[in-house]
Amino acid sequence: MRPTAAPPVPPVLRTADRMIPHRLARSAQRDPVGAARVREWIADRNTARAHTVSRVTFEELDRWGFDTRTGNLRHDTGRFFSVEGLRVETDTGPVRSWNQPIINQPEIGILGILVAEHDGVLHCLLQAKSEPGNVNGVQLSPTVQATRSNYTGVHAGKSVPFIEYFRSPGDGRVLSDVLQSEQAAWFYRKRNRNMIVEVDGPLPVGEDFRWVTLGQLHELCAVDNLVNMDTRTVLAGMPGGFEGAAGTSDRGLADALARSADTAIGGLHTTGELLSWITDRQTEPEVRTSLIPLDDVDDWRRAPDRVHRDDEAFFSVVAVDVASPGREVSAWTQPLLEPHGIGRVAMVVARFDGVLHALMHARVEPGYLEAVELAPTVQWTPRAYSSLGLEPPEFLDVVTAAEGTDRVLFDAELSEEGGRFLHARNRYQIVEVANPVDDRTTPDHQWMTIGQLTGLLQHNNYVNVQARSLVACLRGLA
Amino acid sequence: MRPTAAPPVPPVLRTADRMIPHRLARSAQRDPVGAARVREWIADRNTARAHTVSRVTFEELDRWGFDTRTGNLRHDTGRFFSVEGLRVETDTGPVRSWNQPIINQPEIGILGILVAEHDGVLHCLLQAKSEPGNVNGVQLSPTVQATRSNYTGVHAGKSVPFIEYFRSPGDGRVLSDVLQSEQAAWFYRKRNRNMIVEVDGPLPVGEDFRWVTLGQLHELCAVDNLVNMDTRTVLAGMPGGFEGAAGTSDRGLADALARSADTAIGGLHTTGELLSWITDRQTEPEVRTSLIPLDDVDDWRRAPDRVHRDDEAFFSVVAVDVASPGREVSAWTQPLLEPHGIGRVAMVVARFDGVLHALMHARVEPGYLEAVELAPTVQWTPRAYSSLGLEPPEFLDVVTAAEGTDRVLFDAELSEEGGRFLHARNRYQIVEVANPVDDRTTPDHQWMTIGQLTGLLQHNNYVNVQARSLVACLRGLA
Repeated sequence: MRPTAAPPVPPVLRTADRMIPHRLARSAQRDPVGAARVREWIADRNTARAHTVSRVTFEELDRWGFDTRTGNLRHDTGRFFSVEGLRVETDTGPVRSWNQPIINQPEIGILGILVAEHDGVLHCLLQAKSEPGNVNGVQLSPTVQATRSNYTGVHAGKSVPFIEYFRSPGDGRVLSDVLQSEQAAWFYRKRNRNMIVEVDGPLPVGEDFRWVTLGQLHELCAVDNLVNMDTRTVLAGMPGGFEGAAGTSDRGLADALARSADTAIGGLHTTGELLSWITDRQTEPEVRTSLIPLDDVDDWRRAPDRVHRDDEAFFSVVAVDVASPGREVSAWTQPLLEPHGIGRVAMVVARFDGVLHALMHARVEPGYLEAVELAPTVQWTPRAYSSLGLEPPEFLDVVTAAEGTDRVLFDAELSEEGGRFLHARNRYQIVEVANPVDDRTTPDHQWMTIGQLTGLLQHNNYVNVQARSLVACLRGLA
Repeated sequence: MRPTAAPPVPPVLRTADRMIPHRLARSAQRDPVGAARVREWIADRNTARAHTVSRVTFEELDRWGFDTRTGNLRHDTGRFFSVEGLRVETDTGPVRSWNQPIINQPEIGILGILVAEHDGVLHCLLQAKSEPGNVNGVQLSPTVQATRSNYTGVHAGKSVPFIEYFRSPGDGRVLSDVLQSEQAAWFYRKRNRNMIVEVDGPLPVGEDFRWVTLGQLHELCAVDNLVNMDTRTVLAGMPGGFEGAAGTSDRGLADALARSADTAIGGLHTTGELLSWITDRQTEPEVRTSLIPLDDVDDWRRAPDRVHRDDEAFFSVVAVDVASPGREVSAWTQPLLEPHGIGRVAMVVARFDGVLHALMHARVEPGYLEAVELAPTVQWTPRAYSSLGLEPPEFLDVVTAAEGTDRVLFDAELSEEGGRFLHARNRYQIVEVANPVDDRTTPDHQWMTIGQLTGLLQHNNYVNVQARSLVACLRGLA
């Protein structure tokens, strides 16, 4: 007995070798001219591709209807998704029990970005894609954005370009691959597989696709409603990419960010301490949820063209007719969830010993698989709070106090998934504080470095979709 | 703007500093004499503490009964746990859809081990605890083994000794803290919080508690049915502890293990590649489960004293009366799940370039939160397989071929949780192969190092309870 088998090292570059920092840093260089060209292309694609979307009554939906037994809104094939009821009971937060409609879409889809080197610079393959719920037609979307039904169907090869690179990527080509949750106030345990896969460029692409550098993408993230949610969440999982300014000698923001992303530099808390805090927050609140018939949801009523609360808080479920670009006839009809009012999502950051830290919130939302995920410092829907007569959330005052000053590092209105949500917009902000608001810590908030955050992003169920959007936006500050 | 707040470093030893390898190595030294004394103490405690357990009919249960509407077996307070039905549909494996009874216990309990230095050597505080389902009365249990109802009740402080160290451990004292699943063929999404917390010894303890070194504990793990499941799963999460033999110059097993645990030494696959494989396995099979009334479970019938399948496969749900030690009167009654036959659990290991690797199985079980968790190479219930006429599992032949040779590195019969299962025993084995059975790889099996496995053990939902038991047993080989 002395097994001596040689390790079968794959004959390709290993994942770990692909992520050498200077590769990402080179792609992340500022390129306003290139970014402007991408915007022109999006405007052009918008003319060619944007759907015409109009509100209709539920009766006008084709093959969608309310189940006679449960009242659930579903497609007659049982495919796509359904709108059902959710009962929530918890022992934490200002509201301890409620019912609400929720989207149930148990299939795991793929959100994937292909990357390749062009002239020695890493580029991401993005798509100009129109979704019925988008405020502005076409947005910059990942290479692939496919439900399981899309990509396992008989015509999958034809209907989803580039899907084969994600289903059979080959050894050593996967840079990021993780299941991530989506809006857990609106989706019940919905998750998508977030992937980044490298191919040997150049790869020919059609007119709706374009190779974009990280630097261009970072610039576009700061434009209102341009880079879609799916692109942002996949981009958040890119390993590294904050090192652009590493090695500079000043203590500027870029350096604080680069130091924060360097896992060899410690933060306020060890990763073990943070994992213990997260476990505590996942354990301490009791959160019990169960799907119930939509008909059994109290305080909500069904009108001919929407399901809504009497007090108009939160959102409505509505129905739309979607016409293909340049044609008047209906392409399809579907339900969408329409949030009421624009939300606020803000990450408070501060430097400790020259290392940037983000103040994360272990937030309970009913659609998570775990009790909590890490959300940005503040996640606020003003209209819902005022309808319920609730106090504004913790640390909102810190964010609003910074407005109009150079402490606002990022400020843009970004859209949530337009395939399920109608005009769902949030104002995303990153705000730096000088005073690390130490006297204001709560059991639900904790400071962590960007390296710790991106470490958690390699695993399922830690960082929520709003926080992932802001991690993507943080890259633009490097 | 240039925030310069000093980082508030906790004034105690930080977690990362506590885990210096020589601290664990010193505690892990062999101590057969000390281990024998622990066995004597267990035998003594067994005389004093073992319950008398007898099978009764469901009618004889006190305050437990079948719900008239659903047939679910539950306590009349709704507390503890209930036995309900589960419907499973999947597109993978030899059986694609079935119903079964399952234990639903949504509360998260605490399994905790206190550690402290005595005379410069780290010791674990263990408890001699009798559970009604144990084959042999008292087993070696963690410091704390408490359901949420136990520890949040008004008398929590009194009824659960040492619980305060786990609920308010203080900065820098938590060595391990993670939510881990339990038997997902029998439990629906049950998880416990697995914790290791350090205190400044010595701490006075009662006659049912004892401070035990890692070396003693490793020795006792190899004794049939002595170290209970809860101790094994907590012990698996101990960071480090495989380094005992590091630095020795030969290429023996201990060195292969120490090299395997060293995260600076690479394995066959990078951790990124393994995470991508796990994500793929979590995504690829469709597994849909829903709780249903126990009355709606097909192929199972309710007899006066058990719920069982017509063909006697899998398990029965039974009822027991538990009498306190030395007394004839009933202390309490409760249902238990009684598996049919002794199971087999085996981990195949092999050395690649002098680094020990374990062949892990991405296994679908209906009670996981995710579709799969990593199981040992083989997890087999012979009676269930023969009842259903199934082929033996992949790699079982590799395990049986090793029997009677020095390639069997570990072989003991260990018990599963005696608070819920009646005489649930598995034969646990670790088997080394010379030929790394490369031509036999399946999409569901992958080689990984011990360092990669213990890295995953820091996070929820990756490694199943059977594999965690074997990780604990692997430590004894160092």
